[in-house]
Amino acid sequence: MFEEFLKTFDEISKIGWDENNGVNRVALTKFDLEARNRIISKLHEINAEINFDDAGNIYGSIGRNEGMITIGSHMDSVPNGGRFDGMYGVISGLEILRLYSKEKLNEKLVLVDFTNEEGSRWQPDLQGSGLATGVFDKNFIYSRTDSDGLKFGDVLKESKFLGQEENRIKNMHPDYYIEPHIEQGPVLEKEKYEIGIPLGIVTDVVDIYTFMGESNQAGPTPMDMRKDALVAASKFIYKINEIANTLAPRIVMTVGEIKILPNVYSVIPQIVELKLDIRSPEKDLAYEEKKIAHELAQEIANEKNVSLKIKNGWALDTINFNEDLIKIIEKSCKDLNLKYKFMYSWATHDAMNMNKITDTAMIMIPSHNGRSHTKEEFSSDSDMVNGLKVLKKTVEYLL
Amino acid sequence: MFEEFLKTFDEISKIGWDENNGVNRVALTKFDLEARNRIISKLHEINAEINFDDAGNIYGSIGRNEGMITIGSHMDSVPNGGRFDGMYGVISGLEILRLYSKEKLNEKLVLVDFTNEEGSRWQPDLQGSGLATGVFDKNFIYSRTDSDGLKFGDVLKESKFLGQEENRIKNMHPDYYIEPHIEQGPVLEKEKYEIGIPLGIVTDVVDIYTFMGESNQAGPTPMDMRKDALVAASKFIYKINEIANTLAPRIVMTVGEIKILPNVYSVIPQIVELKLDIRSPEKDLAYEEKKIAHELAQEIANEKNVSLKIKNGWALDTINFNEDLIKIIEKSCKDLNLKYKFMYSWATHDAMNMNKITDTAMIMIPSHNGRSHTKEEFSSDSDMVNGLKVLKKTVEYLL
Repeated sequence: MFEEFLKTFDEISKIGWDENNGVNRVALTKFDLEARNRIISKLHEINAEINFDDAGNIYGSIGRNEGMITIGSHMDSVPNGGRFDGMYGVISGLEILRLYSKEKLNEKLVLVDFTNEEGSRWQPDLQGSGLATGVFDKNFIYSRTDSDGLKFGDVLKESKFLGQEENRIKNMHPDYYIEPHIEQGPVLEKEKYEIGIPLGIVTDVVDIYTFMGESNQAGPTPMDMRKDALVAASKFIYKINEIANTLAPRIVMTVGEIKILPNVYSVIPQIVELKLDIRSPEKDLAYEEKKIAHELAQEIANEKNVSLKIKNGWALDTINFNEDLIKIIEKSCKDLNLKYKFMYSWATHDAMNMNKITDTAMIMIPSHNGRSHTKEEFSSDSDMVNGLKVLKKTVEYLL
Repeated sequence: MFEEFLKTFDEISKIGWDENNGVNRVALTKFDLEARNRIISKLHEINAEINFDDAGNIYGSIGRNEGMITIGSHMDSVPNGGRFDGMYGVISGLEILRLYSKEKLNEKLVLVDFTNEEGSRWQPDLQGSGLATGVFDKNFIYSRTDSDGLKFGDVLKESKFLGQEENRIKNMHPDYYIEPHIEQGPVLEKEKYEIGIPLGIVTDVVDIYTFMGESNQAGPTPMDMRKDALVAASKFIYKINEIANTLAPRIVMTVGEIKILPNVYSVIPQIVELKLDIRSPEKDLAYEEKKIAHELAQEIANEKNVSLKIKNGWALDTINFNEDLIKIIEKSCKDLNLKYKFMYSWATHDAMNMNKITDTAMIMIPSHNGRSHTKEEFSSDSDMVNGLKVLKKTVEYLL
């Protein structure tokens, strides 16, 4: 089983891959369509029933309908992404179906490939699972446009993956959803764990800060007559990082995106806009630090004689996965003598939407050096097989 | 005389101006060509002799050749620039020529409009004065390309402003060069001076710093496992500003330009490249702070676990204008009972190149709020007239 799994993973995860650019399998582009067709022929090989819903999500099912376990993730990638993100969950689920395909199962086993999880082509992300679980409205999702102005609804219609609304996973009333996934962080590897069991997904609060100064000539404007938006923003970024360091590992705080105007070496920066991303399993802590960040930014703006606007970006509150399912995954790890760690998923996954409609959990495996969304993304064969073993054992307990 | 001057200034400085976008009179574009033609017809009106050199610099001369005083600046602007930068010097010089045009002068009075002072279209800046004083090589200047790939030499040839190499100002052996200019900083206005007399142009040292971390996912990467290039760069920018503040007003240190990769809110910044611009009248201080900045950046890079490359950008050492000419300008201010301040020019001007070939000085007038290179750039009529009075008196002393 494990050899077959690794062969299939190697085959399908390389669609859209090249060594210089990583994986380019953005939703409903050529290589995503190729991966979809490949997974469908794999499902055909094991005589699975294949359905699409109105988000283009692919469902492959075996067994009769006395109870239903769904396993899934996504096959789309970010531009220049890695081979493991998403794909690991889909190929693991496929292997479980293959394994049971010759048995007469009373329960249904369903593999799901969710459309446009990454949100790289159409925003927001988690689009397929969002529509299939009723989180998003159909008109909203269909009218989203990509960078070429193409609407999701139109592109989906032109692909052969448009199915019926009645096929949505919500309408299937599954008993469980399990999503195997790479950690996308360095913790499991560094702390020498073989499996991560997420208790849920952290709170994520993103606000947009705009510091506004005055763009005078760098030479003739003395230090004490400046309104330098970048100096203010820099102090803010540096201080926020210090705060986050003292609260770690309970929280992460990141400024990853920043716009500067006019961005000319000889001119004092007038406007600096930045996004502050705060994540913590502890919702209250995240919101408390959001407040502290607002106060700190205002204090620095006053001190540096610049003005400040803060716009609430978006916020997702902590979600907790199903406790019973988590216990079964833990028991599976113990049975297999695998070293596991309870943790949180610090990134969103389709499991977030699925958690709203059924008992949901995830199984995480180590990411080498924590690299993800890059061609350097890597999980070893043995780590992938460990995760698959835990998934297999968990499914055995649930059947 | 002053009314005529203000009228001419208003007329010509508005070429390429609109209220929303400021002045767009970039070198050898439509509006710069229009301004050139307008200044030439003004020179024709007073029967000045008109010449161009091989940089497209315009010379308008009156008088016989027993000694030569040159007055000048530039008419090209940055994109979305102001009405006063450069233009003030050219129209002041024109007014002096107009004033003496009916007299039989033994000395030559020459007005100069230097081509592409701003360097907005072709880099480097100070191009026209650089070629005419022998600072730049002709092949180098002619082969510079603009953002459309057009070479300076070709564009100049197509304009009607290409003249002979023998007409370069260096070959005219002038006795003096005086450049009236707006301050482009807030000091004169804030300290209530009417005239600034620059002793020279400050040292300007620009280095390029590249902090290199690792671009992992912001969520799943704990604070203590990060290599965040932006946190390192922010601490550097903030600390540099603190150092500059303690040394003010002897120095200014500015980070105006910064590039971030990948610049995505949910990804830890991998690469931050920034330019640090250090200026001081005290050459030794500027180079000492350059050294301190290098050490500080390395210290921060080590602390934040990122790597660092520093590339020397460019450096201009302090130049000093002619002491005798400065004394005559001071005497003129005293005669006119104008409140003057000895200062340094903290930005470069064509006077920098002219200082290499003749006795050179500048006359500066206040800039409202220190704004420059923007539509808000403003100097009052009375300040402009004060500067013109000082220029006139200085020329009287020199004749």
